[in-house]
Amino acid sequence: MKIGVIYGGTRVTGNTETLTERVIQGLPVEKIYLKDYHIKPINDERHSQGGFKEVTDDYKAIIDRVLDCDILLFATPIYWFSMSGTMKLFIDRWSQTLKDERYTDFKKVMAVKKAYVIAVGGDNPLLKGLPLIQQFQYIFDFIGISFEGYVLGKGNKPAEILQDEQALRNASQIQRTLEREIKLK
Amino acid sequence: MKIGVIYGGTRVTGNTETLTERVIQGLPVEKIYLKDYHIKPINDERHSQGGFKEVTDDYKAIIDRVLDCDILLFATPIYWFSMSGTMKLFIDRWSQTLKDERYTDFKKVMAVKKAYVIAVGGDNPLLKGLPLIQQFQYIFDFIGISFEGYVLGKGNKPAEILQDEQALRNASQIQRTLEREIKLK
Amino acid sequence: MKIGVIYGGTRVTGNTETLTERVIQGLPVEKIYLKDYHIKPINDERHSQGGFKEVTDDYKAIIDRVLDCDILLFATPIYWFSMSGTMKLFIDRWSQTLKDERYTDFKKVMAVKKAYVIAVGGDNPLLKGLPLIQQFQYIFDFIGISFEGYVLGKGNKPAEILQDEQALRNASQIQRTLEREIKLK
Amino acid sequence: MKIGVIYGGTRVTGNTETLTERVIQGLPVEKIYLKDYHIKPINDERHSQGGFKEVTDDYKAIIDRVLDCDILLFATPIYWFSMSGTMKLFIDRWSQTLKDERYTDFKKVMAVKKAYVIAVGGDNPLLKGLPLIQQFQYIFDFIGISFEGYVLGKGNKPAEILQDEQALRNASQIQRTLEREIKLK
Repeated sequence: MKIGVIYGGTRVTGNTETLTERVIQGLPVEKIYLKDYHIKPINDERHSQGGFKEVTDDYKAIIDRVLDCDILLFATPIYWFSMSGTMKLFIDRWSQTLKDERYTDFKKVMAVKKAYVIAVGGDNPLLKGLPLIQQFQYIFDFIGISFEGYVLGKGNKPAEILQDEQALRNASQIQRTLEREIKLK
Repeated sequence: MKIGVIYGGTRVTGNTETLTERVIQGLPVEKIYLKDYHIKPINDERHSQGGFKEVTDDYKAIIDRVLDCDILLFATPIYWFSMSGTMKLFIDRWSQTLKDERYTDFKKVMAVKKAYVIAVGGDNPLLKGLPLIQQFQYIFDFIGISFEGYVLGKGNKPAEILQDEQALRNASQIQRTLEREIKLK
Repeated sequence: MKIGVIYGGTRVTGNTETLTERVIQGLPVEKIYLKDYHIKPINDERHSQGGFKEVTDDYKAIIDRVLDCDILLFATPIYWFSMSGTMKLFIDRWSQTLKDERYTDFKKVMAVKKAYVIAVGGDNPLLKGLPLIQQFQYIFDFIGISFEGYVLGKGNKPAEILQDEQALRNASQIQRTLEREIKLK
Repeated sequence: MKIGVIYGGTRVTGNTETLTERVIQGLPVEKIYLKDYHIKPINDERHSQGGFKEVTDDYKAIIDRVLDCDILLFATPIYWFSMSGTMKLFIDRWSQTLKDERYTDFKKVMAVKKAYVIAVGGDNPLLKGLPLIQQFQYIFDFIGISFEGYVLGKGNKPAEILQDEQALRNASQIQRTLEREIKLK
């Protein structure tokens, strides 16, 4: 049972990371900071002759780490009412992996994973973050991942998330669920 | 009266561009292809000492073109139920411009613009594209832009959008509105 | 091939009905005006001993007419960003029919139907009507009905819908689709 | 400081009521059970000559109790991914009150209130209940009420809500907020 956290933010020790810490406290996790990788935008060649061309960047290194995990936490600051552009770049590239001969069982492998979303924003995230959650629902449904839960937290200035008691509690709740699951395996 | 089209897609003559052509037919427009520019992910330094650092990429060139337009068309393929990562990278950077001393009236200038969204996806866009539209609503509300309308089209394979009669009609409808507006000015 | 229109509004010749007329022009339809019936609120007895009790009102007469149709048009004014209370009362009662011994194949019969939604509101329906459309999606998914399309129109004062060219065109588009379908059968 | 709970459900001691009990524990509240009242569907006469006609039912008695409260809890089971038809009937009638000469300051009085939503459903409420929350957001925005928070709980069979630890915690969280607020006044 391996837990992977996919961080979409850019700020070191930002609010999203602080909230995520509550979720993973005491658990063995693999931390994947997308900002440390170079990810090129997808070049949509699904219908091009010859299909997708090999892309030279760090995407393969990331997706290999992701595929190796059983539970995925998508931890992103809410930028402009949506996931960070960096995280979106990463997910966009799944379209290429779906056609990649080296990953013929991509969808099958993804479909046995479970996922959580942890998202923190400054502008009324409990309401204005809802379209983001709906998009993750569609994303997970498409690829077959089971959407197990989410936390929307409020935070803008550094450490502000620590005042969002509800978000902290919900994060701890997920932590207990994960802890139980790990023990069972 | 200047119309600017901001393209978020990567495919040359893709479905999104085909649908957008219906909207801009016969109108003088400024075409901004985000894929031709290099846009770095935002580095969230809103709360860092010294604030945002100057970024070396093409963002400034794009935003200057955008600021120069009165009406903006956001034309994006729907990748994973949301705007393309490239377009998201661009919008994320607005946070930096909001703090940029060279653009002190950024919000004020944006707030007199009108915007339309043209988005094409393959997986039930009229339903699964709705969170994307809601996010644009929040984005435009935040920056003050007036959200004048949108078209959601269905298309996956090249030219498939040409079978979506409803989307084509709605695009033509916007074209007439824009045409009227240009004549009035 | 039988088309049934389920009207949720209360105003005679209101905007919703005017828009719906475009959809059904020249087609043989069964018009069901919910306002002409008395529908009691559901009494949730799914888990009561003995189950649901027989209710004395007009619901059975309506559902029998609905079950008899192949294509359903849900035509409702948008009251407070949602379907009318009258239409909601009707749909709520489906929970009872799902447990009713006289309708053991209720879900099966519903699941072969196709549905459209026609909704008219005065306060930015193209954006603020989206949650309503999402709810219809969930409703239809649950019961198995295929959600074929929708029109959101803008209208407040009598006849105002006639100025919403986009809605009128989209309504005519559905009309042509229905006409084709009827001819094929 | 007066707290009013508006119950939309029909089941005695249902899951929604159980969850709401956590929110109001130890607090002085006014309980308004809509099911105990007779509420007629709105007859939309906003644009009729002579305007709305007096309606003979219990609506006035309810709205008077509601107007008398400072904080409103809208507690509804999620029927078909939305509030109960009974609660919808009640809210629909606000349109009449907005035009009622006996309530000329209706909007003004509503606009100083705060509101919470407590909604319990059996079919993935944390995701499929989101359109309902968005609708409440639009409703409260329109009338001017401040939307302070919400709890979405999962429950189908009697008492099932007691297994939804996250919902129970979030309910207790609101309870503490309300308790603090009452003490301050």
